[in-house]
Amino acid sequence: MLDNPLHILMSPKSIATVGASNNPLKMGTIQTTNLINSGFRGKIYPIHPKEKTVLGHQAYRAVADLPETPDIAFLVVPTDQVVPLMEEFGKIGTRRAVIVTAGFKEKGTEGKRREEELAAVAGKYGIRFLGPNCIGIINSQASLNMTLAPQVGKPGMLSFASQSGTYVAQTFSYLNRSGIRFCKAISLGNETNIDSVDALEYLGEDEDTKAIILYIEGIRDGRRFVEVARKITPHKPVLALYAGGSDAGARSGMSHTGAMAGPDYLYEGIFKQAGVIRVQTIEELYSHGWALATQPPLQGNRLGVITNSGGPGTSIANTANMAGMDIPCFSNSLQKEIRELLTGHAASCNPVDLTFQVGVSAMSTTLPEMIMKSGEVDALIVHGVFVFHEQNLFDLSRSVSLPHTYGKPMLATSFFDRQDAHVAFYQDHDIPVFEMPEKAARAMADLLRYRKVRERKAIETPALPEPAQEALKIIKSALKNGQKGLDEYESKKILAAYGIPVCREKLAATGDEALAAAREIGFPVALKGCSWEITHKTEKKLVCLGLQKEKEVTDSFQAIREEVRKNIPVLVQEMIPGSREFAMGMTRFPGFGPVLLFGLGGIFTEALQDNSFRLAPLSLTEAAEMVYDIRADKMLMEFRGMPAVDVPALADILQQLSFISLLHPEIAEMDLNPLIITGARPIVADALVILKA
Amino acid sequence: MLDNPLHILMSPKSIATVGASNNPLKMGTIQTTNLINSGFRGKIYPIHPKEKTVLGHQAYRAVADLPETPDIAFLVVPTDQVVPLMEEFGKIGTRRAVIVTAGFKEKGTEGKRREEELAAVAGKYGIRFLGPNCIGIINSQASLNMTLAPQVGKPGMLSFASQSGTYVAQTFSYLNRSGIRFCKAISLGNETNIDSVDALEYLGEDEDTKAIILYIEGIRDGRRFVEVARKITPHKPVLALYAGGSDAGARSGMSHTGAMAGPDYLYEGIFKQAGVIRVQTIEELYSHGWALATQPPLQGNRLGVITNSGGPGTSIANTANMAGMDIPCFSNSLQKEIRELLTGHAASCNPVDLTFQVGVSAMSTTLPEMIMKSGEVDALIVHGVFVFHEQNLFDLSRSVSLPHTYGKPMLATSFFDRQDAHVAFYQDHDIPVFEMPEKAARAMADLLRYRKVRERKAIETPALPEPAQEALKIIKSALKNGQKGLDEYESKKILAAYGIPVCREKLAATGDEALAAAREIGFPVALKGCSWEITHKTEKKLVCLGLQKEKEVTDSFQAIREEVRKNIPVLVQEMIPGSREFAMGMTRFPGFGPVLLFGLGGIFTEALQDNSFRLAPLSLTEAAEMVYDIRADKMLMEFRGMPAVDVPALADILQQLSFISLLHPEIAEMDLNPLIITGARPIVADALVILKA
Repeated sequence: MLDNPLHILMSPKSIATVGASNNPLKMGTIQTTNLINSGFRGKIYPIHPKEKTVLGHQAYRAVADLPETPDIAFLVVPTDQVVPLMEEFGKIGTRRAVIVTAGFKEKGTEGKRREEELAAVAGKYGIRFLGPNCIGIINSQASLNMTLAPQVGKPGMLSFASQSGTYVAQTFSYLNRSGIRFCKAISLGNETNIDSVDALEYLGEDEDTKAIILYIEGIRDGRRFVEVARKITPHKPVLALYAGGSDAGARSGMSHTGAMAGPDYLYEGIFKQAGVIRVQTIEELYSHGWALATQPPLQGNRLGVITNSGGPGTSIANTANMAGMDIPCFSNSLQKEIRELLTGHAASCNPVDLTFQVGVSAMSTTLPEMIMKSGEVDALIVHGVFVFHEQNLFDLSRSVSLPHTYGKPMLATSFFDRQDAHVAFYQDHDIPVFEMPEKAARAMADLLRYRKVRERKAIETPALPEPAQEALKIIKSALKNGQKGLDEYESKKILAAYGIPVCREKLAATGDEALAAAREIGFPVALKGCSWEITHKTEKKLVCLGLQKEKEVTDSFQAIREEVRKNIPVLVQEMIPGSREFAMGMTRFPGFGPVLLFGLGGIFTEALQDNSFRLAPLSLTEAAEMVYDIRADKMLMEFRGMPAVDVPALADILQQLSFISLLHPEIAEMDLNPLIITGARPIVADALVILKA
Repeated sequence: MLDNPLHILMSPKSIATVGASNNPLKMGTIQTTNLINSGFRGKIYPIHPKEKTVLGHQAYRAVADLPETPDIAFLVVPTDQVVPLMEEFGKIGTRRAVIVTAGFKEKGTEGKRREEELAAVAGKYGIRFLGPNCIGIINSQASLNMTLAPQVGKPGMLSFASQSGTYVAQTFSYLNRSGIRFCKAISLGNETNIDSVDALEYLGEDEDTKAIILYIEGIRDGRRFVEVARKITPHKPVLALYAGGSDAGARSGMSHTGAMAGPDYLYEGIFKQAGVIRVQTIEELYSHGWALATQPPLQGNRLGVITNSGGPGTSIANTANMAGMDIPCFSNSLQKEIRELLTGHAASCNPVDLTFQVGVSAMSTTLPEMIMKSGEVDALIVHGVFVFHEQNLFDLSRSVSLPHTYGKPMLATSFFDRQDAHVAFYQDHDIPVFEMPEKAARAMADLLRYRKVRERKAIETPALPEPAQEALKIIKSALKNGQKGLDEYESKKILAAYGIPVCREKLAATGDEALAAAREIGFPVALKGCSWEITHKTEKKLVCLGLQKEKEVTDSFQAIREEVRKNIPVLVQEMIPGSREFAMGMTRFPGFGPVLLFGLGGIFTEALQDNSFRLAPLSLTEAAEMVYDIRADKMLMEFRGMPAVDVPALADILQQLSFISLLHPEIAEMDLNPLIITGARPIVADALVILKA
């Protein structure tokens, strides 16, 4: 547990700062000024070649002159000074560093070389460091702030690991206005040494952190991310924003922190696999994270809405309903109770619309408590909090205690900001206040998503079986023959060696053999030209389906031979009856290992792109989640007279594919399409294995 | 043109206000105070039973005492006074009114009766009015503000018609902070007389309005909405937020303004049909509307991004790229020019990342102009505007002139707010400033959507043909027989009467007749039990497909007869070869008339819900847009060796269905599924017509 390098780094007793001077416009000075002003209680040792004191602290000429070994070296220096300084700190025994200096792998070949030197000198001394090209850290419990943010306030319960320093240190105006407060915040920079997954692991272990948010431009080790995250997510929410999924996002990330991005669907898949809640904007990251950090967990999907005006009430109800929340009309007895508080024109069903006439206490305390107490909702959104009639703010302490008293989340929205005393009081007492009605509804939807994460079955990483001898043999022989892939027949033999159900089929070298095979298999049959060198068989007219008669078989055999102009064998297959078709596949991404795909098959694979992705190996639970994670999940259910699909059978195939991918690294890609559902059972009707070049 | 009742209502010379007093806590007083304080230059006549003056204006005891006939009666009075007052104003010749008073159809049966009385008295005198249950109007050019918003500032170019008064009058804190300024704003209330479509038409005609936003809980006349909106949208952007699409949203809207909502997909369809840009939140409505109102039209999809920090640059690039913008890497010559302005660590490709070291003038003027001038982008987003190094704000007047000088939109984002002088200057000079990077990118995506609206082909409402005699005969006879629908055979006869291609088929009363029909049509054939009383034929085992042999035909005939236990006729059909299946349908919604559906067919209709919707009648252009408006539009293109689908043929069928719907009001619903694409051509393989009960 305490192996994590951030335990020391985030809670140092002493910091040596290099790059701070008495020039207030220098970044190093600004950051050290913030460190001092935020109230850090440990020692601060500025190192400066000339000054006697820096920002009121005694300065030292060189690292060797320091009176003790500092826990952290904090470097905001020109690029070429970083490696020599690390050497010096290494010599005196400092084992943690925060390197703000930029100019490394985000700057091309020369920068990459510099970064390798940096890694080497750190490795030599066992120094674990953040950055380079980061903005530092915030630990509000320790009043520790090494960033450009002017201050840390009262500690919050939300912690942040970010591949953008700006999102840690430059958004304080928004965060202050929104009442969002960090517990810990870590700017990761280029992640030469300590990376996002280290930060995630540390924040998972940190007891003061109640929710974790991640800004990601690229993850270096996808499998480790999944392993670490899914230990955390059942008991602590993790939210992530991924900005590298488009071409432009990936290019921008590369020039920013040198991050290697990956396609959007890959990150979508690993977030789901890890139980990480994905958001689409930095504002959602902060504000949904804050809602999850401050509110008790949601226990159901019934939402009550209290509003002082109709439009926002409708917007909240509509947005939440669309996102899966139920907005139940209250019971007659509860409505009667509510109406006693309301004027003539108010609605009591849900949303409860107080219109203009009801005061702060009814809106913020009496009604919320009445509705929470009723047991008819699992959560509340209150729109329109502001001090209106009352000259002075009355006591809201009961109001802010309601979520934890009743174990039900409460979110507020207001068109007014912190200048309004009600808004400020809510924010300062951990009731999130959103400036727009739909935003509260969307945050609530993420509380609902987290409920589903908490309810997930426990996931164990499955043990790999022994590799199948038959599969080893086929691959070895193909490689020896110089093949770049396996033909359909060989591909299915590999699958069958792992117990994956494939259609019955035989290879035929002549028309007579084809006919004999067809008789044995039983009509109707399919004929396909079979060679590892031929792809897109259908477009090349090498596939004849639904052959009913003997003559059709011999004719088709001839037709295929003529089309391909080569004496390749022809595969004779049973026709699998069934109108539901799925596809599975495997490909590899650097840093992620084998990535599995499940989706709609046949002609819809390409047209609908309705796929889910996960990393290998897959537990059966994960594989089943992956199957249900398509838009067309209705096709898995009992459907138009067809039985429900045997999802455990599909999950089993996916698991076996994940094993094959790990056991046979020579396989570059696999493509199973279609898997036809016959009755309830999936059978692989076509398959293709591509070998590594 | 000037028929629209809002021309007088929005620009009155005199207003009689009833319900204002000298008690500052009354709504009527607040609203009249705002009217006076906003600087309205016309006459204001308070009516009050006792006071001599109200808010400094001479008051009159009764309507009959007024010195002239006021243009507008402005009523903020108890519910039961509304009708008598309207009678009095009618008598003195006032022909426009704004009724703030609530308690009408949003309050059940009794309220509905009151609203009918109100409509009647207005009708008697020809009074056109807004409300009841509205919050009034803002016309910033006339310094006219009858709402609860404390003031109108400098006029903006964005106008708003809203079914929520709150969104007109209670969001000024957000609007001020965001620098968004209304031109005109209209709170519609219950729309007893003047409705959303009147308001839309008026704002379309208003020259000072450069973009229109709509908040909608329900539209009363969908067809008129489409007709009016699509005259406006080619030259003026219209954005809409619809909040009635879910069950909860619809219920909330009903209790708010008595609005009749409709399903979300229906509004999605009519917005597309009308060229209206749909947004999902009130914040998008305001801020995207503001971007469209202030910026020149986008001429292409190439976006330049200038940022002072990497994370937001990546977020903008990624979000915009995902939404269809291209973020081109700049040419070497432009990059060279850019780099001369930047420090060592900055990126010049696009996003241009200035990092920390570049001042306001480079970021806001020099670089934007350099990039706009290059011709390499069609628009710019600048992140990170704030006054940093400079002690005083330097001259930004050139910066804010760039969009119109170069005809390219420019949006800004900043984590700072109006307290920063740069942010305030931009806002006050119509450069939208978003508080979050992704928000600017999403607004830009709506500029791109509007570009597509401007590029739409002109749409003419098609003329209806004469009804087909054959169709009239079939429907008449079915109604006479007491049928609630038509059987498949009759249904297709109706379609065929309008030239819609249907599969060849014959009815058979015996096995021998079925066999004769099969021989005539040619094998393989399908057999189906045929009766208007039987639906879900497949599930009931009344469909036998792909029959290849004579014996199969006679066996199947028997099997169907045994299954249904009735001597119904059996339909013998050709089997249409083809693996692409679509569906079409028609249903009717109150206020919208016939609504057409197009989508994926066969087993995917239900599982994927990939459908588009439009109102009848359909021009061929609209019908083709409707066809392409499915997620799986790739299936319409050349695809896996199949030719592109004949979309004009599909569009023609949809148009004919729209005609049938209008020509035969006895038809309640139609369902064509599947339409099989054979080669490129669609053929209807199954169809069902339901008649009105």
